[in-house]
Amino acid sequence: MERQDKGLAFMLQYENVAWYENGKVRILDRRVYPRIINFVECEHHIQVAQAITDMVTQSAGPYTAAAMGMALAAYECRLKSETEQIEYLEKAAYTISHARPTTVERMKLITGGCLAAAKKALAAGENTSEAIVAHTVRANDMRYAKIGKIAEYLVDMFPNKGTVMTQCFGETIVGQMLKVARQRGKDIKVVCPETRPYFQGARLTATVARDMGFDVTVITDNMPAWYMEKEGVDVFTCAADAICMDGWVVNKIGTRQIAIVAKYMGVPTFVTGAPDRGHETIDTVSIELRDGDFVLQAMGQKTAADGVKGWYPSFDATPPHLISGIVTDLGIFSPYDLHRYFELGALGEYEMIL
Amino acid sequence: MERQDKGLAFMLQYENVAWYENGKVRILDRRVYPRIINFVECEHHIQVAQAITDMVTQSAGPYTAAAMGMALAAYECRLKSETEQIEYLEKAAYTISHARPTTVERMKLITGGCLAAAKKALAAGENTSEAIVAHTVRANDMRYAKIGKIAEYLVDMFPNKGTVMTQCFGETIVGQMLKVARQRGKDIKVVCPETRPYFQGARLTATVARDMGFDVTVITDNMPAWYMEKEGVDVFTCAADAICMDGWVVNKIGTRQIAIVAKYMGVPTFVTGAPDRGHETIDTVSIELRDGDFVLQAMGQKTAADGVKGWYPSFDATPPHLISGIVTDLGIFSPYDLHRYFELGALGEYEMIL
Repeated sequence: MERQDKGLAFMLQYENVAWYENGKVRILDRRVYPRIINFVECEHHIQVAQAITDMVTQSAGPYTAAAMGMALAAYECRLKSETEQIEYLEKAAYTISHARPTTVERMKLITGGCLAAAKKALAAGENTSEAIVAHTVRANDMRYAKIGKIAEYLVDMFPNKGTVMTQCFGETIVGQMLKVARQRGKDIKVVCPETRPYFQGARLTATVARDMGFDVTVITDNMPAWYMEKEGVDVFTCAADAICMDGWVVNKIGTRQIAIVAKYMGVPTFVTGAPDRGHETIDTVSIELRDGDFVLQAMGQKTAADGVKGWYPSFDATPPHLISGIVTDLGIFSPYDLHRYFELGALGEYEMIL
Repeated sequence: MERQDKGLAFMLQYENVAWYENGKVRILDRRVYPRIINFVECEHHIQVAQAITDMVTQSAGPYTAAAMGMALAAYECRLKSETEQIEYLEKAAYTISHARPTTVERMKLITGGCLAAAKKALAAGENTSEAIVAHTVRANDMRYAKIGKIAEYLVDMFPNKGTVMTQCFGETIVGQMLKVARQRGKDIKVVCPETRPYFQGARLTATVARDMGFDVTVITDNMPAWYMEKEGVDVFTCAADAICMDGWVVNKIGTRQIAIVAKYMGVPTFVTGAPDRGHETIDTVSIELRDGDFVLQAMGQKTAADGVKGWYPSFDATPPHLISGIVTDLGIFSPYDLHRYFELGALGEYEMIL
């Protein structure tokens, strides 16, 4: 595999995650990164929504892509009347935020913020697309800065020398936690289950850890229990696609299984991110079921014979009793005590999407 | 994927598992089956041992291959004196039985049986290679017939309508259990975790179930817990590479993880096969660690970047408290009560390798 990227910095630079410019949105295709550096180009906000549906980007990437899709929608309707523009943007916000069922609530916060920025720009006679981009950069800057606080609390849970197991790819938190661990002189080994069917653990998380100079080992998704037994793991950590107020956590398929195994093996499970006020309980989260045929291949090579079915839920849900703590920018909370996060005057959820 | 095979019958026919003829051993390459039908040809018994090491065949395949390797060794030394032939065959038995560390004890039963057959032939002035082949066919016939009894006891544990989760590929027991389930009119759905890194679940078990007309679903190895939660599983079952007398079971990597998850989810775990008297406790089993780089690819496609390490234990060990029962030809035993199997006048272990 020839590597052509410039590492984590490249992948997380807003312009490379997803970017609006001159009536187009470019999105880094994380389905093939780091083997191939390719940007999917969208000329209409519906294409942006489709790219999110198609998992061109993942982790926090879809939130930046959604905002850029709103900037593109603003460009599309720029010649209409003010009322028509707002109506157009409201429709676009609906389309984009519903690109994937599991993250609708978080997406609404993003598209809602863009809508507010556009309305303000319209009132001031300013360019709406530019206003949405500027708003997104400010919001992302704030969010990325705050994730550093989460990383500090998370690294508090690491031993001075030990092993951390991850799951899938948690955008900035992975890089931040490793940066903080190094600053504090903690000698951390990283173990990444590969995260089928898209291999985000093998492709993205492992690449980030290696680029940062860490000792990183990839295992297949049937190995976490045995790795814990034979090699030892001190902490299992992951980000989340939804942290419900009742303590249930929705994250990449496989999280629940590792959490069960971790509890059985005496390894704590720490989930990073802010609780979602949009989900008072797990009952309001819809777990996306994708085309089952996708699990019948690996890296584009067919694995099973014709006539065999596949089953592909993108995410799963982990109950609070399997979670040792929700690591936020305000400290580590019990999954049973998440309302206190907001009582403590927390930042809005928007900033906390990892 | 173009399928050229003739289904389970083809794969399990002794001549296609591994066969000695005219100074050569042919072994079906299960690493690429069913996509490609290819036989690895060996002209020396050391090549047969190497093919076993290289995982050309798996499940019970290596035992037939080992016997055929002994027939080849007998051919190699046929012109030597009787004493020299026995010495040569004893060395070959050692080489072949040590091809993979985890199954040495079971392999010794096979090569020991072949050695005895050869000695008998020598004493009677008969062809040793032919005697070993004839002995192997008789032993396999006995073994395959007895597995039907295991299948009967296993299917007793299935509901009239329900779902069975498998792990990896258990040679004949998979086909036998489905045959018995059908005979009894049980409506069984099969779920196969894909079994990384070789995809035996996706490639072999799923193919067998489909060829037999069953509804079969493949999932990735991070999905068993969520599948049990959302779709429901009635029984988890697997064969084993070693069933120690203390109730610990050694089987394909991932078995322990599914057993943990099954216990947590209230699903019983049934392991098929006879206990191994060669392993009074788990302490005498050596779990094979293979080249870690193999987990950094999938179906030949590289998944992780250079500089990332891999870790690849072929097997793992599951403690008795996670196992609901060891299903033998004499009935279902508690994993804590395996000595009774032999007290009941059981068949030799050789016959019970699945």
